[in-house]
Amino acid sequence: MAIELYWASGSPFAWRVMLTLEVKKLAYESKLLQFSKGENKTPAYLQLNPRGKVPSLKDGDFVLYESLAIMSYLDRKYPDPPLFGKTPEETGLIWRALAECESYVVSASNKVVRPIFFGEGLDKVEEIQQAAQTLRQEFKTIDERLAVSHWLVGDKISAADIGTFPLVQLILRAASKEAAQPLNLGLLPLEKTSPNIAKWVQRIEALPNYQRTYPPHWRK
Amino acid sequence: MAIELYWASGSPFAWRVMLTLEVKKLAYESKLLQFSKGENKTPAYLQLNPRGKVPSLKDGDFVLYESLAIMSYLDRKYPDPPLFGKTPEETGLIWRALAECESYVVSASNKVVRPIFFGEGLDKVEEIQQAAQTLRQEFKTIDERLAVSHWLVGDKISAADIGTFPLVQLILRAASKEAAQPLNLGLLPLEKTSPNIAKWVQRIEALPNYQRTYPPHWRK
Repeated sequence: MAIELYWASGSPFAWRVMLTLEVKKLAYESKLLQFSKGENKTPAYLQLNPRGKVPSLKDGDFVLYESLAIMSYLDRKYPDPPLFGKTPEETGLIWRALAECESYVVSASNKVVRPIFFGEGLDKVEEIQQAAQTLRQEFKTIDERLAVSHWLVGDKISAADIGTFPLVQLILRAASKEAAQPLNLGLLPLEKTSPNIAKWVQRIEALPNYQRTYPPHWRK
Repeated sequence: MAIELYWASGSPFAWRVMLTLEVKKLAYESKLLQFSKGENKTPAYLQLNPRGKVPSLKDGDFVLYESLAIMSYLDRKYPDPPLFGKTPEETGLIWRALAECESYVVSASNKVVRPIFFGEGLDKVEEIQQAAQTLRQEFKTIDERLAVSHWLVGDKISAADIGTFPLVQLILRAASKEAAQPLNLGLLPLEKTSPNIAKWVQRIEALPNYQRTYPPHWRK
């Protein structure tokens, strides 16, 4: 049975899993859900994922949700190429990068991205500025790590890169919107603020089949 | 060279790593930091962990921070007993439990625990009640999983149990405080609200050397 991936356009968490599938050259059936039509809250989907979120993955009879969990499952089931490190040290550093992304980037990103995209809470200036400061700091850390290597951990693409990249793209997209201009987020132009991240983004965009993972509604 | 663990009393994240070390029967040198004395912000400590948080682990020349990263490093370096699953499916479910803990339990726990312990923000009743509702829901999910098995994933203790347990203990401790009583958190008595979690807590408390991991200042 084919792998089925349930995802939504623009979800950075679903994007992680798509990139993982592409890097591992795994065929999968795409199940694109429209949140605006409530397709993530149907009884059938809630059977797969009671949280009504994306991504969810079905591999034969096995169903899993939470993006990092799916990535770790796929890596153990389909180990080529290995994405969670070739040594204990690499494994630790990869999960460190992922934990930092989850603990610091994701929550700050929510506070900046949502107001810009949905116009809600744009008046909470202090909260947005504090989150933007966190993002600048985290970008700085990432940029410094990429100054000494093409990839976040080790000499090949890993789950650290794949897990971080969609969040970076989401933040950059938000920062480029008109509603973001008065906020002076200090993230753009990326080549100036974070030159190593800029090159790393290009490196990932040059991966085979990258275009297949790009959020369809972002093209419009 | 011995493993060194930098930790603080009552940090659920540091507690995860201590439990991991004990379950794997690894000897380690305990480096207890007093946050109240700023010992997490000294230049020497910031060299180890620029975020000034705990836990940090030093194993020979290798230094790592972020609790889940340390757990995954230790598991790969010292694989007996394996804590991240014996099959791809177990690995996926263990990381799902950990991701859910990080994404849902930790942030809700912060909103409930901090006001109770430190008295700040106790007036943000709506935010606390919303977080308490999340915690009740997450406890329900955990309790249901423990209804069919002694451990969260598989038939042995895993990183899912070790990662979740210190958060549960922290939340229960907060819920038992006098300042929590007017909040009606609906989490206690645990045997009534979450009978399977109650038995699981006892199971973990019965582990060899559990007492060595118990936060010293909680005994007072």
